[in-house]
Amino acid sequence: MRNITREELKRASVPQLKTLCDVLREEILNTVAVCGGHLSSNLGAVELTVALHRVFSFPQDKIVFDVGHQCYTHKLLSGRAERFSTLRREGGLSGFPKRTESEYDCYDTGHAGTSLSAALGIAKARDLKGENYEVIAFIGDGSFNNGLIYEALNSLRILNTRILIVLNDNGMSISPTVGGTHDILNEMKGEALPSEDVRLFERYGLAYMGVYNGNDLGETIAALEQAKEKLRETSVLLHVVTRKGQGHPFCESAPLETHGVNGESAHDAESAEYSAALGEELCSLARTDSRIVAVTAAMTDSLGLRRFFDEYPARAFDVGICEEHASVLCASLASAGMKPYYAIYSTFLQRAFDEIVHDVCGQNLPVTFCIDRAGITGRDGETHQGVFDLSYLSFIPNLAVAIPKDIGELRAMLRMSVDYPAPLAIRYPREGHEGVIPTIEIGKFEILHSTTSDIIVLAAGERCISLAEKVRLRLSAQGKDLTLVNARFLKPLDEELLASRREKYVLTIEDNALCGGLGDAVSRFYRNSGKEIYCFGYDDAFIPHGDVCSLAAEHGVSEEKILAAIEALYARG
Amino acid sequence: MRNITREELKRASVPQLKTLCDVLREEILNTVAVCGGHLSSNLGAVELTVALHRVFSFPQDKIVFDVGHQCYTHKLLSGRAERFSTLRREGGLSGFPKRTESEYDCYDTGHAGTSLSAALGIAKARDLKGENYEVIAFIGDGSFNNGLIYEALNSLRILNTRILIVLNDNGMSISPTVGGTHDILNEMKGEALPSEDVRLFERYGLAYMGVYNGNDLGETIAALEQAKEKLRETSVLLHVVTRKGQGHPFCESAPLETHGVNGESAHDAESAEYSAALGEELCSLARTDSRIVAVTAAMTDSLGLRRFFDEYPARAFDVGICEEHASVLCASLASAGMKPYYAIYSTFLQRAFDEIVHDVCGQNLPVTFCIDRAGITGRDGETHQGVFDLSYLSFIPNLAVAIPKDIGELRAMLRMSVDYPAPLAIRYPREGHEGVIPTIEIGKFEILHSTTSDIIVLAAGERCISLAEKVRLRLSAQGKDLTLVNARFLKPLDEELLASRREKYVLTIEDNALCGGLGDAVSRFYRNSGKEIYCFGYDDAFIPHGDVCSLAAEHGVSEEKILAAIEALYARG
Repeated sequence: MRNITREELKRASVPQLKTLCDVLREEILNTVAVCGGHLSSNLGAVELTVALHRVFSFPQDKIVFDVGHQCYTHKLLSGRAERFSTLRREGGLSGFPKRTESEYDCYDTGHAGTSLSAALGIAKARDLKGENYEVIAFIGDGSFNNGLIYEALNSLRILNTRILIVLNDNGMSISPTVGGTHDILNEMKGEALPSEDVRLFERYGLAYMGVYNGNDLGETIAALEQAKEKLRETSVLLHVVTRKGQGHPFCESAPLETHGVNGESAHDAESAEYSAALGEELCSLARTDSRIVAVTAAMTDSLGLRRFFDEYPARAFDVGICEEHASVLCASLASAGMKPYYAIYSTFLQRAFDEIVHDVCGQNLPVTFCIDRAGITGRDGETHQGVFDLSYLSFIPNLAVAIPKDIGELRAMLRMSVDYPAPLAIRYPREGHEGVIPTIEIGKFEILHSTTSDIIVLAAGERCISLAEKVRLRLSAQGKDLTLVNARFLKPLDEELLASRREKYVLTIEDNALCGGLGDAVSRFYRNSGKEIYCFGYDDAFIPHGDVCSLAAEHGVSEEKILAAIEALYARG
Repeated sequence: MRNITREELKRASVPQLKTLCDVLREEILNTVAVCGGHLSSNLGAVELTVALHRVFSFPQDKIVFDVGHQCYTHKLLSGRAERFSTLRREGGLSGFPKRTESEYDCYDTGHAGTSLSAALGIAKARDLKGENYEVIAFIGDGSFNNGLIYEALNSLRILNTRILIVLNDNGMSISPTVGGTHDILNEMKGEALPSEDVRLFERYGLAYMGVYNGNDLGETIAALEQAKEKLRETSVLLHVVTRKGQGHPFCESAPLETHGVNGESAHDAESAEYSAALGEELCSLARTDSRIVAVTAAMTDSLGLRRFFDEYPARAFDVGICEEHASVLCASLASAGMKPYYAIYSTFLQRAFDEIVHDVCGQNLPVTFCIDRAGITGRDGETHQGVFDLSYLSFIPNLAVAIPKDIGELRAMLRMSVDYPAPLAIRYPREGHEGVIPTIEIGKFEILHSTTSDIIVLAAGERCISLAEKVRLRLSAQGKDLTLVNARFLKPLDEELLASRREKYVLTIEDNALCGGLGDAVSRFYRNSGKEIYCFGYDDAFIPHGDVCSLAAEHGVSEEKILAAIEALYARG
């Protein structure tokens, strides 16, 4: 679609804007069908975002989108409509707000709960600089569970500034929103608004306004105008109810399934999801072991836990988007004799770093972290790449860190984990191949291909082992050889195997930042050994959105680079 | 004092228990005077803890102390009175709850906000195992600001279990407690309890009981008995008001100054506090630069920011124990043109890891982290050592990490930071020496002692440089020499200097875990260079409480070890 100017938006009649909403919805649907992305949340937020652009003046006014996945209409209305077909493609528009992309994006988001704090900081800077504009935090009810929100609410009065919080309440946080806060918001949706709920927000320094039907454009514009007026005196919470997937029958009926959509891509027909194996194994293990419980932070389905939740409802906990609480819950369940499995995406586990260190590992408790979407994840970009987990886990005492080479090995590691008496992290990508189920011993590598060559390659994880194997076959065709090892434990390292190797040249390959990962660990072990070590992993940069393989190559890990390095070694003789 | 048995406690009359409180208070005062520790919070909690031991049956019943610093009376009443004089001494009792120390300590704490989550996990495990005991979370009003608390509250109904929350409200969180939640709690203390506040907790699934005078033993016992009764049906929040420092006139009037007490120790008469320099420099810089703001999470005084808060109240923000929110606030203030300085202890910054990665560094915003109490801190033990910061900061793109060699260098780094346009972390210990104020260039080391020897020592931070210098002088007396470098930036490394050095032997010394710190970074730079690298830092373990120097030596960093390593190199010729 063509770019819409601010003037056009301000001039249009409400019926014209309704037509615009239809066009926007169509554009989002068509683009997401091709590029993938967040569908139902964006469909639900079309009218609300159009109304915001009608009532406020961006980019002078500032809007912070919590998580940021629901910003598509905002992008379409801020001069990016003509580039919208590049959404989530390498070099194209990001699926999240990006300061570097547009002056209309004032603050980058990606993880839940930061919008209120960010809006407060921007508003406070405005006040201190004597500037004059409005600051809006646009937040879903799912994020409203996150602890950061309460930390920000708690400091509203301390900071003594004014922001508008638009609470986009669609009842979902990928999984349906859960918990006490959600219940409170739900009660507020009732006809007779309980005065104590309004008072709750007032105590924090917020005028509460609601509830509005956020898919009714006229009503929403009127509510926002009223809120803008009130904002002269006080911070305002505008509680808007929208329908996730609005305007698309399938999305409305299946908001969970249409939260994230893959779009067109060249899928490997043989590939399967690691998450499905996680769910199957946990169900099977739980049948004979009553200590096993599963914990998730609002991601039951995408982590493969649906069946476990159905079969073992009393032992399955979705605590909402509360990654820290989930970690402490696991630690304490373990402290009292249970065997918790905490399934989470690599990037989101960053939130629980302190709790991994102190609650789980400090007490040496047998919690198993099932870390999905590890490594480069692709189109969601910087805030969703799982390329730091090996770095932030490698130095935590008591923690074992495992990297399965395929889905069969994930199964084996899970089976091993049941009797493993200490903290264990298993990190794996979204997709891979099934493979056989081996017997796994903690801290033991596997030799995949053994030769008398002077080159040994230590590769971790399916993607890297597959690259290494391709390199090996290409070299083999040239009559050159190498020994290939599945370095399936970052910690403990297989020191016995490492100590026994006689190769002069050691290569490491990992789907993680170079700094702090397998390469550093192997280098530390071989320090002053006389061996030459060459490490492949990602360079010291935030990796933007794009395709997994080309991003990996661009940031340091590719068949060609590894091949070239080995050929250079052979050339030296 | 002698150990008190459970039977004695259960049998005693209230007047006898009051006498016991006097004895306990005396014991705490005398012990803290010698061993140091948390004084006023423990004095305030004596009656409440005695009442808990009277009404509940530990260790069958479980109690989780939030932060854990207020557990002294609990320790004295659980068979540890006779060892209490070893408090915080190496090999003695920990100043925090420790599962490994006593079966009465069911969950280790140290950082704020974990107690509700932990109590919920223990209670849920109890339910799943069909056991029968009570679980209590003992929490101060300061911790009640932390986001984790709301994440736990939000899942109370989801988890469908019962816990007792004892809210020990003394109005302090080291600094006075601040924010909206505190205001709500304060209103509750009024005569006419607003019903909406009670409803607030009920919505989350908690029966609210309060307010009780927690320093009145009889009243507190009665309230706890009532709470225990109610606990049969529902989770309960018992709101108890205590007086921090109760029973000691100076502590009552100066709870902030007596929160942490140093005890007897051999203080270096010439040593000063880095925090004082931070405060002075920020005040001085703020005078001519209106962009400068300071942010703290409830630690204004111990971080040296009191004067800044007094002189620039509009540009100084204490947001309570909300480390994550403080980070996002800094990022957003910076995004809108301010220059934020976030002062925090090394160990507490772990909480904000995700926000450092995405909000600050992902957006490449000029936030300066002033990281105090870095390295081994000593008597507070595992949860308070600052030995992981170099590891968890080293791999974050865009972040510079500086390690001043003395207080003068901290001043220089702060002056440099004003125009530094990107994220910067400066980490330093509590105490050190003033030194001169040099000119600092980002990423440039300083050669402290230059020789033609084949040994170069790269030391980071005052403690390590001082060790290295002592070793150098001892070797010098033997006619042996070494080049000594102040490796004041972990990132960016001074690659120009490193590349220019011709020494065969490189030693690194750092006050941090070996994994992920300076040694690994230097090793990465010198990979395959033919140099021999020897790294001194802490081994892969949680470091317990004790004296800084002996802990450092025991875990890998001592004059003797470094000397021995260099002598071994000389012996090889």
